[in-house]
Amino acid sequence: MKSRLKPGKVLGSAFALWFATAAFAQDRPNVVIVLADDLGYGSVGAYGADPGLVRTPHIDQLAKEGIRFDRAYTTASVCSPTRYDFLTARYSWRTHLKHAVVDEYDPLLIENGRVTLALWLKQRGYQTSHFGKWHLGYGAAPFQSLADAAAVGPNCVGFDHHFGVPNNMDDVHKVYVENDGIFGLRSKRTSPYGKSYYGKQYAGYDAPQRNEPEVMKVITEKAIAWIDRRDRTKPFFIYFAPVAVHHPIMPSERMRGTSSAGAYGDFIHDLDYSVGLLVDALKVRGLDQNTLFVFTSDNGGDIPEDGKTPERQAIAAGLKPNGDHRGDKHQIYNGGFRVPMVIRWPDRLTSGAVATGTVSTIDLFPTLAEVIDTPLQDEQFDGRSFRALLTHPGERYQREDLVLRDVNGRRALVAGAYKYISDQFPPSVKGPKVEEELYDLGTDPGETKNLAGARPEVVAKLRQRLAHISRGD
Amino acid sequence: MKSRLKPGKVLGSAFALWFATAAFAQDRPNVVIVLADDLGYGSVGAYGADPGLVRTPHIDQLAKEGIRFDRAYTTASVCSPTRYDFLTARYSWRTHLKHAVVDEYDPLLIENGRVTLALWLKQRGYQTSHFGKWHLGYGAAPFQSLADAAAVGPNCVGFDHHFGVPNNMDDVHKVYVENDGIFGLRSKRTSPYGKSYYGKQYAGYDAPQRNEPEVMKVITEKAIAWIDRRDRTKPFFIYFAPVAVHHPIMPSERMRGTSSAGAYGDFIHDLDYSVGLLVDALKVRGLDQNTLFVFTSDNGGDIPEDGKTPERQAIAAGLKPNGDHRGDKHQIYNGGFRVPMVIRWPDRLTSGAVATGTVSTIDLFPTLAEVIDTPLQDEQFDGRSFRALLTHPGERYQREDLVLRDVNGRRALVAGAYKYISDQFPPSVKGPKVEEELYDLGTDPGETKNLAGARPEVVAKLRQRLAHISRGD
Repeated sequence: MKSRLKPGKVLGSAFALWFATAAFAQDRPNVVIVLADDLGYGSVGAYGADPGLVRTPHIDQLAKEGIRFDRAYTTASVCSPTRYDFLTARYSWRTHLKHAVVDEYDPLLIENGRVTLALWLKQRGYQTSHFGKWHLGYGAAPFQSLADAAAVGPNCVGFDHHFGVPNNMDDVHKVYVENDGIFGLRSKRTSPYGKSYYGKQYAGYDAPQRNEPEVMKVITEKAIAWIDRRDRTKPFFIYFAPVAVHHPIMPSERMRGTSSAGAYGDFIHDLDYSVGLLVDALKVRGLDQNTLFVFTSDNGGDIPEDGKTPERQAIAAGLKPNGDHRGDKHQIYNGGFRVPMVIRWPDRLTSGAVATGTVSTIDLFPTLAEVIDTPLQDEQFDGRSFRALLTHPGERYQREDLVLRDVNGRRALVAGAYKYISDQFPPSVKGPKVEEELYDLGTDPGETKNLAGARPEVVAKLRQRLAHISRGD
Repeated sequence: MKSRLKPGKVLGSAFALWFATAAFAQDRPNVVIVLADDLGYGSVGAYGADPGLVRTPHIDQLAKEGIRFDRAYTTASVCSPTRYDFLTARYSWRTHLKHAVVDEYDPLLIENGRVTLALWLKQRGYQTSHFGKWHLGYGAAPFQSLADAAAVGPNCVGFDHHFGVPNNMDDVHKVYVENDGIFGLRSKRTSPYGKSYYGKQYAGYDAPQRNEPEVMKVITEKAIAWIDRRDRTKPFFIYFAPVAVHHPIMPSERMRGTSSAGAYGDFIHDLDYSVGLLVDALKVRGLDQNTLFVFTSDNGGDIPEDGKTPERQAIAAGLKPNGDHRGDKHQIYNGGFRVPMVIRWPDRLTSGAVATGTVSTIDLFPTLAEVIDTPLQDEQFDGRSFRALLTHPGERYQREDLVLRDVNGRRALVAGAYKYISDQFPPSVKGPKVEEELYDLGTDPGETKNLAGARPEVVAKLRQRLAHISRGD
């Protein structure tokens, strides 16, 4: 890339000096993407969370020093599909996963040979790594032991290094995976025991068991240690996937009691603290100026029905994880899809800007591709580059139609101000009986008034468009 | 205090909401003062340190969010006297300590009944605490065992809580003191062993020995833990005294190798990291808005003669711990006295301002007194309130004459643009033979041209003024 994205930036002498003396200056930026788990934008200070309840100083600081996207969507309201979409710039419902998520013994969802953001960067000289939640499966087929399946995982789809939590906080595996195996595995013996949050027995692998309140700390320190042992002649990519704030809500000892919204607020603090540690690690090493740092989430906040859950207690205290949007994780309404997204890159981007154009997590790969090298030129990609918004955040930006899918596999189409929700499910999925819905998000962002009956011509057009995008599925 | 110091601040709705809902809102601010050890301003990014060498993002952030003082002096170019002066607003040479510092077996320098900043705040309802380096002695008389002497220490001069390093990094005591005793003392048995950095045997108390690279972490975590167990109905004061960056230079494992200036740079990173942890701890607890946070240092950077020391290696790499000022720690020139000073208090002070008026660490107590309650009205105090600079940082501010003293007990007087350096020593001190010096700091901030011969009338006047201030000594 020849030109600087930041218009009119004057090189101060201190900056010029830094640039000249930085030990490992390079043209292409490092890339760090933090994809939080189940974090609604309404839990973030920069997006209006009540500072009397929770405080997210580090994410807020990223927003101050970067661009805050105020209309960012995921493509699914649950974890696995958003993660597939983000890594491949492709809708996950084009794979065999038509609804729900990757289960604990499911194989790797990313197909052999599929171009991922990690692979694409690796092919351009980047060192690539993933830390934290994976939830995209391991192995070539459904498996019985993670000890065998782990051999086929992130390392096969472009990540040089992987230190991960297989599925979720408190999944039955209860171990970390490092690269192609269970971290610290001593033998193939298993001794199932206890019960996970999900009511199933822990697998009981003969390896160190995760201590849930320490998982955020462990994956953060692993990521920072990797930064220090990287090849300093190459740029790097870190896909950092916190387990916070997915249930079970298990804040660290450090953060317990620090929020005014109970354990859920404390866990939000853990997430923010890890973001701070990562940014700090870059700053003290002089790496942050040329690092494109993205903070976002895989879907909206989860609001369990059980009123005694920490999430519901935080809501009772006044927290609004999904702001005034309708619904939450799992659902087809925007509360499940609208997420925080902040991008900071001091060398090239303006600071403190707000972008209101519609963007999606599925667009990150195409955007990075255009920024770092050349636009992705292949119709296999569903993501769309929003590089224009990086240069001119305030400009009007109209994304092409965006498809959303919920936990049941039901799809919706965001087209301009309209949101059309289909009444169909993929052939292989038996969904509940529903009707078509149409909302004008411009006048009704809370999706309260179904216009499907009143505007059949719009419904017909959008139904057709969704069918066209879904062709072959 | 009825009026807000910040002129023209508009209460945003989010802020107003916070103010209304904050669990422990109070009128008087919490006070946190970080007094770094031997940190020259030139090692701080906000004061021009080359970011290609060291990075101090947290101190820099304080400066961005607060007021940066660009002409801050200590009153001594060594540790103990500055610390006495800071706590009592009184020149330490009015005590029996006429030169050098408090030795490892010396009694408490602060006199029985002396008003300290801690005591003054305690009398006004504050909870008060000290963490880290003390270096003001323990006990009522020179002692043989810290196990006995520790009973008379910070708790006797206004601190509710004390968790300290008795003198310096790697002093012979090698233990922590908690309140009135050695932390974790098991018995009075001692088993002297090894050799400290200073060539003396460790005392070998029967208690946990400090692990030097972890001291910053330990004192920081102790301070944060104290915040959590405080009485939440009262404001608090923390005097936080890092052991960094005093020799021996022993960076933490976390920071080793992160700077581009060797171990000294890494140790600067440790200091900055602790500042960040403290600020973060306040932020996530919603306490930072009404906390007056001061960051400063006890004297300029130490530049040992031995070229193989980490300090000298950092200088060889390009670091200028004391900028372009002459001299360093111990000496009578400004390199020993000019320090970074940043004050942040979001509720009341403007952010990002720079104050160029002359201020001193000895002025902090009088300034806080005027801000929190009423001005100190007693001629026993040598400090002067610079509250005016908090409200209007950019205004011209002329401090009264300021007395400096070096390691040998020699004194200087900063009077307007002039700096007069005496050729006398206190009667009890046998100093080296020196001549009077006079510098015009306005035109010659580097103290290169001695004007004493050329301007005898100025010398005579300032000699007399210094004698007047020193009266009774």
